[in-house]
Amino acid sequence: MIYLDNAATTKTDPEVVETMLPFFSGFYGNPSSVYAIAGKSKKAIADSRASVARVIGAKSDEIYFTSGGSEADNWAVKAVFEALREKGKHIITSEIEHHAILHTCEYLEREYGAEITYLKVDREGFVDPEDLEAAIRPDTILVTIMAANNEIGTIEPIRELAAIAHSHGVLFHTDAVQAFGQIPLNAEADGFDLLSASAHKLNGPKGVGMLYISKNVKIGSFLHGGAQERQRRAGTENVPGIAGFGKAAELAVERMEAKAEREEELRDHLYKLIREKITNVKLNGPAWDSDPVRRLPNNLNISVEFAAGESMLIMLDMQQICASAGSACASGSLSPSHVLKAIGLSDSLARCTLRLTLSEENTKEEMEETADALAKIVTRLRRMSPRYEAFVKGDVGSEIDGVTKI
Amino acid sequence: MIYLDNAATTKTDPEVVETMLPFFSGFYGNPSSVYAIAGKSKKAIADSRASVARVIGAKSDEIYFTSGGSEADNWAVKAVFEALREKGKHIITSEIEHHAILHTCEYLEREYGAEITYLKVDREGFVDPEDLEAAIRPDTILVTIMAANNEIGTIEPIRELAAIAHSHGVLFHTDAVQAFGQIPLNAEADGFDLLSASAHKLNGPKGVGMLYISKNVKIGSFLHGGAQERQRRAGTENVPGIAGFGKAAELAVERMEAKAEREEELRDHLYKLIREKITNVKLNGPAWDSDPVRRLPNNLNISVEFAAGESMLIMLDMQQICASAGSACASGSLSPSHVLKAIGLSDSLARCTLRLTLSEENTKEEMEETADALAKIVTRLRRMSPRYEAFVKGDVGSEIDGVTKI
Repeated sequence: MIYLDNAATTKTDPEVVETMLPFFSGFYGNPSSVYAIAGKSKKAIADSRASVARVIGAKSDEIYFTSGGSEADNWAVKAVFEALREKGKHIITSEIEHHAILHTCEYLEREYGAEITYLKVDREGFVDPEDLEAAIRPDTILVTIMAANNEIGTIEPIRELAAIAHSHGVLFHTDAVQAFGQIPLNAEADGFDLLSASAHKLNGPKGVGMLYISKNVKIGSFLHGGAQERQRRAGTENVPGIAGFGKAAELAVERMEAKAEREEELRDHLYKLIREKITNVKLNGPAWDSDPVRRLPNNLNISVEFAAGESMLIMLDMQQICASAGSACASGSLSPSHVLKAIGLSDSLARCTLRLTLSEENTKEEMEETADALAKIVTRLRRMSPRYEAFVKGDVGSEIDGVTKI
Repeated sequence: MIYLDNAATTKTDPEVVETMLPFFSGFYGNPSSVYAIAGKSKKAIADSRASVARVIGAKSDEIYFTSGGSEADNWAVKAVFEALREKGKHIITSEIEHHAILHTCEYLEREYGAEITYLKVDREGFVDPEDLEAAIRPDTILVTIMAANNEIGTIEPIRELAAIAHSHGVLFHTDAVQAFGQIPLNAEADGFDLLSASAHKLNGPKGVGMLYISKNVKIGSFLHGGAQERQRRAGTENVPGIAGFGKAAELAVERMEAKAEREEELRDHLYKLIREKITNVKLNGPAWDSDPVRRLPNNLNISVEFAAGESMLIMLDMQQICASAGSACASGSLSPSHVLKAIGLSDSLARCTLRLTLSEENTKEEMEETADALAKIVTRLRRMSPRYEAFVKGDVGSEIDGVTKI
């Protein structure tokens, strides 16, 4: 199997699983209990909290474990709204956020009269800081912009965006589910007040994530009940999951640089091969030859004209190659990706899109195998495409800039 | 180690861990993805949903996986309030609910003008159906009463309570975190509309639970975002955790009867030994010689006069015996248990309380060892107690009915 869908989820690192195992049937004590064996659980949580905090240069007691990135996003947006709704009901976000942000905003709009500004992005997916500046109102209470996009890999200028929010006394949250542990992030330097992350995107287990809440931010709980997480997030702690998240965070810090380098090299190679073997291919998201690079190192997103994304995926799967068309969370939806539409793709190009997200475990041979397989698949699909026939005849043009009749 | 704190959390059954393991580093695909390996995750979730549904005679598509019992409780109460707040803002619960219910109710009171009636319980912890009948108002939208209490093991008459709620057109939710998989529960016969459960209370993993939502109940989501759980609970599914929950549910159904019988036998033996060896002991919660038994089979809760609960716990721990004073979730709190106060215990008796919750893996020898250890501990503690000295001298009486000067 060639797994190229690491933005959807990653393999839990065997070292992470090793770290988790003792807490299932051995040291299974409830960390809230007073006896000695529960101390093992308590210590595992404290250690993990420190490891997770280290990834973003935060303090341990600013990390609150959750059940994942979606819970963290819900908590951040809903609790800020609740805490500040007397001050104002205006939230600013972007058109290309994950649904955990977008649907939460829509819910607050629908049920509680929130007013949401959805900032547009440019053709590479970047939010323009000037647009943020212009959108802030006296009743703005939160800006929430993702650290990196899950479909097209765009790394947003969160440092500039946070500074603008702060200059107006507005809180800044970032959904860093795709960025946490993948690219450098720092609470102080980047200036975010709240940050969401998820373990399973960095070779940790599914079912655990965290919300960073800066000491200066006063918001309520999202899950009410027991006194866990310093009375801010109720529920018996998922001790094995949290221990695994800590180990994954540790490994991510150690490996970040080498991993990014390796992934970039593989990805660039894959893209080069695809360009050589397949015509009418469009890169979606930021160019990666810019300096500094503002794209996630493992992300390749392309539209292959005259080849349906869904068909490419199924045929790749038949060759044991795992890829995706957009985000996994929105799969099953019939409408094309909101991210691709926001960067200006037509519905037809959006439907011809493949997302390939690599890991450091991939090999050059796998890239070659993938490019070869994809080239054959595209040839087969285009052979059946009346629109491709018309394009070859010169009756219709290409939607991709710079592509002319073959 | 003698583990007698199964109401706090249980050992994850090694069979459950076996079931989980393949989904960490093997079949780790995101269940929302289209390729074949993701199908393994999808199937694991479907199988687990069926197993969990079977425990309460529900349909698979009435089960929604959550991160645990607390999330399920928050979801049920908050979403019903949100859906019906135009109809009314009155919720009825009991004084002895878990904090996941009580603090959620207090939150709705404080922030959104909910009005909460907290039903009193009798000295054994039972809610009186007549009290419920009397408390229902035209603006009542929800009755939420636990299936079994986590501290004193009282099994509430939820069938009668649900019938009363329904006769007024009011929804009935039950927090079954302590009852699910331990005692028979049936959606149709018992008539609950919503039910919360947690895997780690029945030898499943921590970090996963579920909310049963009857087909007839229309409530919104609590976690907004991706389209998981049929668009009602966002977030990448905790596949290993969910698979483990399913296995634990399966085992619980198979073992329920034998397990209960075994636990009752051990518990009765333990209580008999304690009564023989220690004076001034009060049983808290329902008597277990009634017919039908209305107490969880594995629960023993006693107050040992003139011996502080905290001290007994620490000294038991030194002998590797794990017990608790009240619920683990509320540990660290200085005030005595709200449950013990609700059944009429004085603060001083409440502070002398031990909860011993057994598992079928405990042995008769462990019961004897525990009773012996406890007797010695109590003797030591009482030797240092001026109040006990005064009691022996006849200067003060006992708070426990039927106990007279030694």
